[in-house]
Amino acid sequence: MNHRLIANVLGYTMLVEAGFLLLPMVVALCYGEGDWTSFLLCACICAIVGWPGTRIKQKRRQMQRRDGYVAVASAWLALSLFGALPYVFTGAIPHYINALFETVSGLTTTGSTILTEMESLSHGVLFWRSLTQWMGGMGVLVLFVALMPKMGVGAVYLMRAESPGPIKSKLVPKVGETAKILYSIYIGLTVLEMIALRIAGMGWFEAVNHAFTTLATGGFSVKNAGIAYYNATPAIIWIITIFTFLAGVNFSMIFWLIRGHIKDVLRNEELRLYTAIVVVSTLLICGNLCVQSGTTFGQSVTDAVFQTATIITTTGYATKDFASWPVFSQTILVILMFVGGCAGSTAGGFKISRIQILVKSLRRDLQRISHPNHVSVITVEGQMVEERVVTSAQAYTVAYLLILLCGTLAVSWDNLGFTESFVSALTCLSNVGPGLGRLGPMANFAPLSYFSKAILSFLMLLGRLEIMPILILMSPRWWKK
Amino acid sequence: MNHRLIANVLGYTMLVEAGFLLLPMVVALCYGEGDWTSFLLCACICAIVGWPGTRIKQKRRQMQRRDGYVAVASAWLALSLFGALPYVFTGAIPHYINALFETVSGLTTTGSTILTEMESLSHGVLFWRSLTQWMGGMGVLVLFVALMPKMGVGAVYLMRAESPGPIKSKLVPKVGETAKILYSIYIGLTVLEMIALRIAGMGWFEAVNHAFTTLATGGFSVKNAGIAYYNATPAIIWIITIFTFLAGVNFSMIFWLIRGHIKDVLRNEELRLYTAIVVVSTLLICGNLCVQSGTTFGQSVTDAVFQTATIITTTGYATKDFASWPVFSQTILVILMFVGGCAGSTAGGFKISRIQILVKSLRRDLQRISHPNHVSVITVEGQMVEERVVTSAQAYTVAYLLILLCGTLAVSWDNLGFTESFVSALTCLSNVGPGLGRLGPMANFAPLSYFSKAILSFLMLLGRLEIMPILILMSPRWWKK
Repeated sequence: MNHRLIANVLGYTMLVEAGFLLLPMVVALCYGEGDWTSFLLCACICAIVGWPGTRIKQKRRQMQRRDGYVAVASAWLALSLFGALPYVFTGAIPHYINALFETVSGLTTTGSTILTEMESLSHGVLFWRSLTQWMGGMGVLVLFVALMPKMGVGAVYLMRAESPGPIKSKLVPKVGETAKILYSIYIGLTVLEMIALRIAGMGWFEAVNHAFTTLATGGFSVKNAGIAYYNATPAIIWIITIFTFLAGVNFSMIFWLIRGHIKDVLRNEELRLYTAIVVVSTLLICGNLCVQSGTTFGQSVTDAVFQTATIITTTGYATKDFASWPVFSQTILVILMFVGGCAGSTAGGFKISRIQILVKSLRRDLQRISHPNHVSVITVEGQMVEERVVTSAQAYTVAYLLILLCGTLAVSWDNLGFTESFVSALTCLSNVGPGLGRLGPMANFAPLSYFSKAILSFLMLLGRLEIMPILILMSPRWWKK
Repeated sequence: MNHRLIANVLGYTMLVEAGFLLLPMVVALCYGEGDWTSFLLCACICAIVGWPGTRIKQKRRQMQRRDGYVAVASAWLALSLFGALPYVFTGAIPHYINALFETVSGLTTTGSTILTEMESLSHGVLFWRSLTQWMGGMGVLVLFVALMPKMGVGAVYLMRAESPGPIKSKLVPKVGETAKILYSIYIGLTVLEMIALRIAGMGWFEAVNHAFTTLATGGFSVKNAGIAYYNATPAIIWIITIFTFLAGVNFSMIFWLIRGHIKDVLRNEELRLYTAIVVVSTLLICGNLCVQSGTTFGQSVTDAVFQTATIITTTGYATKDFASWPVFSQTILVILMFVGGCAGSTAGGFKISRIQILVKSLRRDLQRISHPNHVSVITVEGQMVEERVVTSAQAYTVAYLLILLCGTLAVSWDNLGFTESFVSALTCLSNVGPGLGRLGPMANFAPLSYFSKAILSFLMLLGRLEIMPILILMSPRWWKK
């Protein structure tokens, strides 16, 4: 293992975090809030910690797949541990475990919160909270790859380990260029939503924060009531719905759309399935709300499409307390928590293309029963999927299920109910945010014990990095040799 | 597809069912109950329906893997449809869907019930109810293979499709002999438990019925309170615990034990893991009950070991209302519902050896990240596992998860709560029996709608036959050509 290179990546990651920490400092200064010193202090700490790493002399710049996984996993751990400091230093969240939970929930774009009073927090803290989601959405190491062209071939492994989805596509031959394009689209969409929200009547501060957390499929809000605060302004709700849906689309599709390859985009299997799932779920929830809760048709449509979009993209915003909806609608939302958005988006969960591969491999297994010697390959988007990718997707399912059950068990010690335990583990592992029952969208995760919060933070990291990097970092045998 | 041969198997299956139906008739006659005529009528119907099938001239006796799957799936469907008639004819369960639910729950050894008043039913009906579990436990077609030596090579496929587990082992070269040995062990253990229960103080009728439903890992009882009726007699509880545990062991192990190969049995990986899971779960539940419910240590041990054994083996007996236990204990039971017993036992669920394969394949996938070109095989019990078996186990996980989620969604329309919907789908798919919440062990499945009952019956069949046979029977393309 190339320890020097990993230390180097870690060092630069801390410098990037230091840079990001200057932004809430500026916000605090603009609003004349005294806690700008805390942000400055945190930025200095990150810079001091990161500096030695960037000075390490490299014997060889070669990075292997495993190094990429370890680098990304440890970088995310470092980002979380130091990213929690501003909450503690400003006094917004005095207890470190709570602060860590909030930070991990931010960086992994989960959006579960232990806070009840968002509106009493300073602008700087609120901005940092939303910014952690925006950083984590596209990935800090992807940014790093975009900014550091000298990384070389190894950058591929950093990108691979940080970007979600079973198959990683390159938009252009150079990985640094790909990273730049992705970040440009990300920034472009964020700015676009910001302006749209401002026009629809939101204040600038709220517009910036909500644009950050929408595009990252994060789900943090600066209002105590969350997005429900804007229920009276349908324009805002619909803008958020549309941008949430977009954030769940593979960013390559948006790239091809900009390039004018509309036909290719419309023919994309993953995008079609994603849209189909959104439409069907919306219709089912809408029907269920009309029949079993007596909601009017118009209101049902708005609620259903909003909730479907924010849950499938693992954003987790809520305009209604869906924890009190009929069980059928709740179950659809739970299933959507498993599904997640498209690969190569900022969404969490299983990812649509992985589900495509899994269903196709299941169909192949069925065919094998009657044609045992028939060799068939699985194709996605007309391309043959390597057998290695199929096995990985299947192993991922097993790992997901095992982790989900262990997480449920750990949280269940708090004795909040089986639904609460299971759905909180699922919502964290899939980076969605709100749970059900007493951990629903209008409640928060404060009732949980510190032990459960630590476990759920761990699940969020596992989910965001798609399990394998963290497992490799944890298994002692990778540290030998 | 060899339609003639499948029709032939179906015909004989109906004759076997007719034969079994004569037993409750005898019981009814012994107790001087008038409903013996209903059983005779049902037996006649089965015989008349089955007769033409047995007369079909065979062009070729060759059976292929797919034929075996279709034969087994359709045989189970027929057994269920006709097995429900006695309940309707005797008036015990007037509605056919309810009767079907009870029959499928019996044959698949699930043990969920829609009945509240067992003690007011006639002895004949109660006996038929327990007998369906005993028939389904080892499998009707396995019996058929044991009795019909002329079936030839095709019998392997019938055995394979009906016996659970990822790898099917042959005890002796001839498949008919294997089937005979399995049934002998099954009958032997049943008789042994019967005698033990009688000595411990149960009446003969109760002893016979409970021995049937224990060895089949079914869980039906003839008492309204279930096994909790015998809480005052620890000997009975411990006898049931031990035989339940045995019923979850691979019957090959019992064969080797009888043959004196004790070392081989003790070295068996699956048996060790099974025992380890039972011990660890017992300790965890025991600790949880002591700490969070204030139960005494002695009582906690008895409760924990009993409940662990009956849930992991998917029997589903209950001495306590575990739906009101602390959530941690409930969650362990839910995880055990996923796990299930050993392959080649009468238990349902995932099966221990399948979990072994899945965990090993996950570990291999992790290794591949650092050694991409390293080829490694998975071994179980020192034997190499074919790659086909590994992929099947993984595909099985995906199918299981998909069916579980769809089942949960279907049941959730009844609006009983997410826990109720999820656990009832799981308990049926894993052939366990009781659910949680309002469908707990001291309640029953009567509150569910006919739609949900039909869906759950379907899940039970899927679970018992390990999904693939039913999926193949359902997919229209297998009917062509």
